[in-house]
Amino acid sequence: MTSLAFIGPGIMGRPMALNLMGGGHDMHVYARRAEAAEPLVAAGARAWGSPAEAAAQAEVIFSCVSDTPDVEEVLLGAQGVVHGARPGSVVVDMSTISPSATREMAARLAGQGIEMLDAPVSGGEQGAVSGTLSIMVGGKAEALARVRPLLDLMGRNIVHVGDNGAGQVAKACNQIVVAQTLVGVAEALQLARREGVDAARVREALLGGFAGSKILEVHGQRMLDENYTPGFKARLHTKDLGIALAEAESLGLDVTAVRAAADLIRRVAEEIDGELDHSAVFRLLGE
Amino acid sequence: MTSLAFIGPGIMGRPMALNLMGGGHDMHVYARRAEAAEPLVAAGARAWGSPAEAAAQAEVIFSCVSDTPDVEEVLLGAQGVVHGARPGSVVVDMSTISPSATREMAARLAGQGIEMLDAPVSGGEQGAVSGTLSIMVGGKAEALARVRPLLDLMGRNIVHVGDNGAGQVAKACNQIVVAQTLVGVAEALQLARREGVDAARVREALLGGFAGSKILEVHGQRMLDENYTPGFKARLHTKDLGIALAEAESLGLDVTAVRAAADLIRRVAEEIDGELDHSAVFRLLGE
Repeated sequence: MTSLAFIGPGIMGRPMALNLMGGGHDMHVYARRAEAAEPLVAAGARAWGSPAEAAAQAEVIFSCVSDTPDVEEVLLGAQGVVHGARPGSVVVDMSTISPSATREMAARLAGQGIEMLDAPVSGGEQGAVSGTLSIMVGGKAEALARVRPLLDLMGRNIVHVGDNGAGQVAKACNQIVVAQTLVGVAEALQLARREGVDAARVREALLGGFAGSKILEVHGQRMLDENYTPGFKARLHTKDLGIALAEAESLGLDVTAVRAAADLIRRVAEEIDGELDHSAVFRLLGE
Repeated sequence: MTSLAFIGPGIMGRPMALNLMGGGHDMHVYARRAEAAEPLVAAGARAWGSPAEAAAQAEVIFSCVSDTPDVEEVLLGAQGVVHGARPGSVVVDMSTISPSATREMAARLAGQGIEMLDAPVSGGEQGAVSGTLSIMVGGKAEALARVRPLLDLMGRNIVHVGDNGAGQVAKACNQIVVAQTLVGVAEALQLARREGVDAARVREALLGGFAGSKILEVHGQRMLDENYTPGFKARLHTKDLGIALAEAESLGLDVTAVRAAADLIRRVAEEIDGELDHSAVFRLLGE
């Protein structure tokens, strides 16, 4: 049994924390809105009034919050993890945030003898509930080895990508590829429909060749069914693409193409409904 | 044994025609440059001085040339197929051209009692040689039923997409999806490299999830190896995307995103080398 802390039991974090508790571990939780912690408290977790207090009880501290400033606040803010965590503890940040900010925070925590891993996930709420997330990890191999049995409680495909920040880089890469592929599939199926050609047949014809992808298979079918129940919300993909684009631009990469795809997904969020699955870009292109 | 004609034995057409001859069929060939027909003549084909003369010998006439005007010339020009082909014959156009021009040509040929199928392929020179092309077919089901045993000599995945032009629509859709996916993969792996992260690990981490695609698998590896032997030449993808974009725009589809991807592939052709595989977009983004 390991003493764990979980900062940010939201839509993703709550089922992840429950899966950790299912491994028989002691859980200390902090939620900005106290009611978000209730399902964990009901399952035996103890709630604390600050990230620092929760972290003080734990050997491994997980965070899963919305964006870069939120992670900075819960780790390094006035009541942040850094003010409670013991030297030798490990912070595992499972949020999707900036790779460069991640590296800076890891360096700050290392100065206090605290290891940090970035471990963003893909697989959505469904993957969080079923414990089948893909987890992309950046940081020291030894730190990952210590927490791997815990990650195994939440995910299935756990890849050590590289040093601090590398997990966030892989996540940014993932969101770029998904955006471009998704928009390509939406454009193609919309073209078929406008041509009066059966888009389902086109999807089938394309699946076996070089146009074949998980997105064509899953999201292509969602588009044909016009079923935009998330899945992955357009609003959240837009946020993640903001991180990826800022990072890519700061490194001088030509982002004209992915920005054009990201703009369409942002327009789904702004002009239709940000709570819809991002495959609703097919609907946007149909208007 | 069926008497066949083949118009345009080029890099793709020559192995396709040889595979047709391998089925024991009588072959009549027309090539704009006579020497292009030589390997077929050496294998027992008869060469003719015009598409009309070759077509006059055949029950099924295949064409595989570069672009829309070339197909219009060989089918409907002064010495075109329409002036030689017998009523009841079938024209199978395997070029990648405009869907709307295809529909017009099919109507013209139908007026002479000649059926037309559009049957563009994917799978490249390698697929043409090995007889494993994917073939996307538009036109009447009865006409396809007549020629299906012949298509089986050239391809493996033969899908009847719909009426005349539907095969070309599927091909345009294919080229759109491939362009967007390819550019997304190139951007992502280039971002990883610029971040100092092992791009091979990123590719692996992404392969199992929603970013997974045939392009990430095959072209992602080509990018990592910087092996730009085609494959599919940047110059030809650029030509196909020109057709797809013109068609999509004529139907009022928002093409900003795919145009941005197409522009990068065009720049590979113009600024690096159009004979390289289109995955060289990774190199363009690395400059």
